[in-house]
Amino acid sequence: MTDLPALSSFTAQVRPALRKTLEKTISSAGNHGTPHLLEMITYQLGWSGENAGPKAEGKQLRATFTLLACQAAGGDWRDALPAAAAVELLHNFSLIHDDIEDLGEIRRGRPAVWKVWGKAQAINTGDAMFALANAALLDLSESVSLETALQAGKLFHTTCLRLTQGQHLDIAFEDQDQVNLESYWQMVGGKTAALLAFGLEAGALAAGANPEIQAHFKDFGHYLGMAFQVQDDILGIWGEEEMTGKSASGDLITHKKTLPVLYGLAQKREFAKAWNSGEITPATVPQLAEILQAEGGRAYAQSTADRLTDLALESLRKAQPQGEAGESLEKLAKKLLQRAS
Amino acid sequence: MTDLPALSSFTAQVRPALRKTLEKTISSAGNHGTPHLLEMITYQLGWSGENAGPKAEGKQLRATFTLLACQAAGGDWRDALPAAAAVELLHNFSLIHDDIEDLGEIRRGRPAVWKVWGKAQAINTGDAMFALANAALLDLSESVSLETALQAGKLFHTTCLRLTQGQHLDIAFEDQDQVNLESYWQMVGGKTAALLAFGLEAGALAAGANPEIQAHFKDFGHYLGMAFQVQDDILGIWGEEEMTGKSASGDLITHKKTLPVLYGLAQKREFAKAWNSGEITPATVPQLAEILQAEGGRAYAQSTADRLTDLALESLRKAQPQGEAGESLEKLAKKLLQRAS
Repeated sequence: MTDLPALSSFTAQVRPALRKTLEKTISSAGNHGTPHLLEMITYQLGWSGENAGPKAEGKQLRATFTLLACQAAGGDWRDALPAAAAVELLHNFSLIHDDIEDLGEIRRGRPAVWKVWGKAQAINTGDAMFALANAALLDLSESVSLETALQAGKLFHTTCLRLTQGQHLDIAFEDQDQVNLESYWQMVGGKTAALLAFGLEAGALAAGANPEIQAHFKDFGHYLGMAFQVQDDILGIWGEEEMTGKSASGDLITHKKTLPVLYGLAQKREFAKAWNSGEITPATVPQLAEILQAEGGRAYAQSTADRLTDLALESLRKAQPQGEAGESLEKLAKKLLQRAS
Repeated sequence: MTDLPALSSFTAQVRPALRKTLEKTISSAGNHGTPHLLEMITYQLGWSGENAGPKAEGKQLRATFTLLACQAAGGDWRDALPAAAAVELLHNFSLIHDDIEDLGEIRRGRPAVWKVWGKAQAINTGDAMFALANAALLDLSESVSLETALQAGKLFHTTCLRLTQGQHLDIAFEDQDQVNLESYWQMVGGKTAALLAFGLEAGALAAGANPEIQAHFKDFGHYLGMAFQVQDDILGIWGEEEMTGKSASGDLITHKKTLPVLYGLAQKREFAKAWNSGEITPATVPQLAEILQAEGGRAYAQSTADRLTDLALESLRKAQPQGEAGESLEKLAKKLLQRAS
């Protein structure tokens, strides 16, 4: 992030503060004779085990957006730390369960929790982190009014449910021949956008911003999440392996029903025929990606991502973000969505 | 429950009210294009699917204790409905995940959720019910003060974490040759006692009882849960199949490390030798149960259960429970612990 000096200095402050908040939540909950459970939790957070460190900790983007939103809405970012910790814990809980559900073996360059400790302990560790996320959030009552803390709690629980609704659809898609666009957007809205939207809304809420401004921050997070997912769909088929850290065209091999694929299937032409034949191999994938591009799948997804990005940035402008934090929000969003400017 | 007329009439009022509260929580959260997720949730609650009905719904003991505590602490049981719904949803969430973790195929006489819809969807459905439990609880703010609602939230999150700590130990015990008594009590305290203790404390909290009275209700729930588990351990080895609905001595076949077994292992005599030989079959189990009884395992567990029951009833007396609800609490506890008087 050398191109974002303000953000970089913010991140340098944020990471240790977030870690301290997380540690406080975890330790205040008590151990009750379960050091190994604690070990699994800190492993998932990237703090312990082989190759622990920044890469294993993840980018903490959701927490960063939450804290920036608080500062940009006229508050002190420290007041939003409980919300940021909750977001980070919830995200990690969902990763543990996702990896079990889709048998993902590697997470942030290390074996997934279930690969190390088995599925039973991994499911339960996810549950423990879900409980910790809820506990973290209510510490908002130390920095904001009880009304605000309670409101944040209600928003958070709705967000958690949206997350499971999105995940439900994502799992269900695997067994469905056809997925309509409405279901796709419901899935992305829950699985990717809901937690970002909550983080931004909670940040503004903790800053004491008025409901209208809160709603704009929320919309910013929502559209940002949607745009990010579509961008990720594009990269999953046409991305450079070097950039994404995943093998290019990987999503075609795993038969993932991404937006470009849904577009291609709806054309009922050569791509749809090849897809439905069920014989996609690493050797045939590059050609299949070309066919999908020729049939307009890439252009359709890119224009959709562009439209969503515009909506995100428009929502951010309406939120009237202040100071360096406001600029950082815009820069971080653009960086995430791979916009040059 | 023909021997408990007051309780029976209470239950007749409670069940529909609890159902209405649960339905309100579930529907107010919104569907977002996921009717099948809703189907899994209502199946787990016993409302839908084959053989839906009271048996599939379960006894709802935890919710009943919560509501009785509120009434017995001088409140109106209706004020505790959000807490009772939260307890019921959390209990059901934990059952879904427990069944996946220990491969339990039957739950309340029907196939477990994971047997019907697969593990991925079942894990996620449990997560959704966890989110719903949290959402249900915060509706307390409609009937009690914000402070009280927030306090209940904090207690609930600690309880959820205790539940996962207990479950962590329970899973870990399977792979351990030795389990010390301290770990056993930590496990039971989290897995069985914590949620009962929360329900009773939350009921008293919703009634506006003073902290001392709340603490006695909590202790009542804690000791009740502990006593119940030890009683269940005894029944799992020496119970009549007819009474328990499980095959007698089933816990010996599955090599479950219950309190009588831990006692027997500590004696390092014939029972320990047979257990460690690893050759326990349905044919040898009755003899093994006899040996364990002869070595004092049953008597030890029974005297422990009796001591815990006394502690529970003493805590209840200190809580000064009022009226018919107070009597019902005592009767229900005794019935649960199979005390004649």
